[in-house]
Amino acid sequence: MFFKVFRSTTWLAHGQGKRVLGVVGTIIAGGTITTYYQRNDAHMAAKLTVGKFMAEPITPKDTLVANADDMRTKMELMIMKIQADFCQSLENEENFGKKFTVDRWERKEGGGGITCVLQDGDVFEKAGVNISVVHGVLPKGAIQQMRSRGKQLADGELPFFAAGVSAVIHPRNPMVPTIHFNYRYFEVTDSKGNKQWWFGGGTDLTPYYLDEKDAVHFHQTLKEACDEHDESYYPKFKEWCDKYFYIPHRNECRGVGGIFFDDIDTPDQESAFNFITTCAHSVIPSYLPLVRKHKNDAYGDRERQWQLLRRGRYVEFNLIYDRGTKFGLYTPGARYESILMSLPLTAKWEYMHVPAPDSKEGEITHVLKNPRDWLQTAQNK
Amino acid sequence: MFFKVFRSTTWLAHGQGKRVLGVVGTIIAGGTITTYYQRNDAHMAAKLTVGKFMAEPITPKDTLVANADDMRTKMELMIMKIQADFCQSLENEENFGKKFTVDRWERKEGGGGITCVLQDGDVFEKAGVNISVVHGVLPKGAIQQMRSRGKQLADGELPFFAAGVSAVIHPRNPMVPTIHFNYRYFEVTDSKGNKQWWFGGGTDLTPYYLDEKDAVHFHQTLKEACDEHDESYYPKFKEWCDKYFYIPHRNECRGVGGIFFDDIDTPDQESAFNFITTCAHSVIPSYLPLVRKHKNDAYGDRERQWQLLRRGRYVEFNLIYDRGTKFGLYTPGARYESILMSLPLTAKWEYMHVPAPDSKEGEITHVLKNPRDWLQTAQNK
Repeated sequence: MFFKVFRSTTWLAHGQGKRVLGVVGTIIAGGTITTYYQRNDAHMAAKLTVGKFMAEPITPKDTLVANADDMRTKMELMIMKIQADFCQSLENEENFGKKFTVDRWERKEGGGGITCVLQDGDVFEKAGVNISVVHGVLPKGAIQQMRSRGKQLADGELPFFAAGVSAVIHPRNPMVPTIHFNYRYFEVTDSKGNKQWWFGGGTDLTPYYLDEKDAVHFHQTLKEACDEHDESYYPKFKEWCDKYFYIPHRNECRGVGGIFFDDIDTPDQESAFNFITTCAHSVIPSYLPLVRKHKNDAYGDRERQWQLLRRGRYVEFNLIYDRGTKFGLYTPGARYESILMSLPLTAKWEYMHVPAPDSKEGEITHVLKNPRDWLQTAQNK
Repeated sequence: MFFKVFRSTTWLAHGQGKRVLGVVGTIIAGGTITTYYQRNDAHMAAKLTVGKFMAEPITPKDTLVANADDMRTKMELMIMKIQADFCQSLENEENFGKKFTVDRWERKEGGGGITCVLQDGDVFEKAGVNISVVHGVLPKGAIQQMRSRGKQLADGELPFFAAGVSAVIHPRNPMVPTIHFNYRYFEVTDSKGNKQWWFGGGTDLTPYYLDEKDAVHFHQTLKEACDEHDESYYPKFKEWCDKYFYIPHRNECRGVGGIFFDDIDTPDQESAFNFITTCAHSVIPSYLPLVRKHKNDAYGDRERQWQLLRRGRYVEFNLIYDRGTKFGLYTPGARYESILMSLPLTAKWEYMHVPAPDSKEGEITHVLKNPRDWLQTAQNK
């Protein structure tokens, strides 16, 4: 049996301009620390494992324990585990022990989040992994956006709850692709107390150079996650992904796709939760092998410059079209640093840059303009 | 008397995917070439001076000659002169003879433009000066936006005409501020043939480090231009500028302001045109002295890194909030390369970067969060 300080955490409480800083350490014994909490109301003992998380959960632990079967609790604990597992996997790839900084923040309107960023690493130039667990009253813009997607929402002030994990990883080596994923749960309650809920999410890959085997491995891993739950999911969500991560003014996709979906509320809440949980757990096996395969690949200034230009396109998509970014920035009390952690450390815009069609840069550009059916699912149907 | 090739021009005709390339040279004798055109309809000779422009006007020369008194013609010739004068002034500051590349483009829906870009210069890292003269049917989004500003516009397909010049200059030396200006004329015709017209525009400065004398010189030059026409203009348009070039999620202005206005249709068309012409002519005296003063200032990596971070904010404003960029990118047939020429060559995003309040970086940040009345006009009123 051994003891070590698992992680140092910087706590940040935002809201009303106050900024509370402190440092905590969590001691783990062997692997997992098990903490016992006393329920105030019922004097019963309950168990909650939090030792491996990046920080304390946003929701007070006694509330989580008291509502262990509630989807809000299950979702919060699931995204915290995904965040911790993914951050640890990425840290393991760093050569000189670079670690994520951890910011736990609160939102004065209700809830908060944990933002983990690893910047200027040897392998990862900028990696951001964020969870948020927020509640409050839905902003008007959000109601309009949800209605435009077909949601039937009552007028007036609608209380909501949202919990999600999202990450964008920008590696330094241009041969390692960028990955993004996001899995989220949403609840809205109308004036009569009726509750609507749904899940959304997706994982997508943005390579700077084409490696067909990488794209196939990535899609295959996501397909297997989908197939565990419903064989109709992968083809549908793969197409949705190509349509969503699309830059209209350039007539090109952001990357080689993956899966994307929203408003999932079938066949039932438990099954839908299990589905997104499987998807979230497929992120590491879909991506880490690509990092390991390419992180020591040779490259020069030409590849670096191309990577910076492609990152400029990434910025264009995120700031102009991405629903999450737009919705986030227009939401009162939004923590813009957590929303904009998705932006690369550096990006470049050259006027009229068009790669030669027969170059490696031209090759990936062609794929971005003509999304492929990587697993030839259309043929195999 | 001497002859020289004034400028080589690359012509690009965009539309339907065709791309026509050719090179023309214009010979000037002494200073200005005077070209005589025969009016087809009236067999009369008319005179049009185009030799100093960056390329041939967008509107055929015989149409310009035939409609010499029309505001469309006056505007097109004015913006072409502003473009040429400004490009030449900037080229004069370059140390090794770097020149603007000139793209003359056509829009299949009607009209076109001339985009001049100087990239990777010794003094200017990226300088874009664009004119466009376009006509067609107003997109729905544009009608909504104009109505939200209080314009009374009929339903149905509304023919429009727009002509404008816009420029963004990103110098290499972080001690030289970035400048942006835009002057435009708009016409909309309703189904009964009633024509509405208005002018808009502005000039604003984005320094990376505060030089109070620079800001005062810049504002003073703009104020003098305004005062020539109406002494109420400067204070009003200065405030409008601070409000427009504002990044809500960061609660800071993009720069130290300048002037900004829209929907100017008083006291009459000729006077309004004269006003924006004076403003456009004040760009060079407002900015070039600052370039000359600072282009050889010493700086190091710290200043360069700060410049890149501030450019990240510039990208955020342009892609998320700027009406012109959003309207442009959502317009069918828009030439995105001309719209996005405003983006810097390089930009950077660091998570949670906050400069020390007592540093030079903290000083300008304070000003961006608290816009100043540079000429103390409020006091002097």
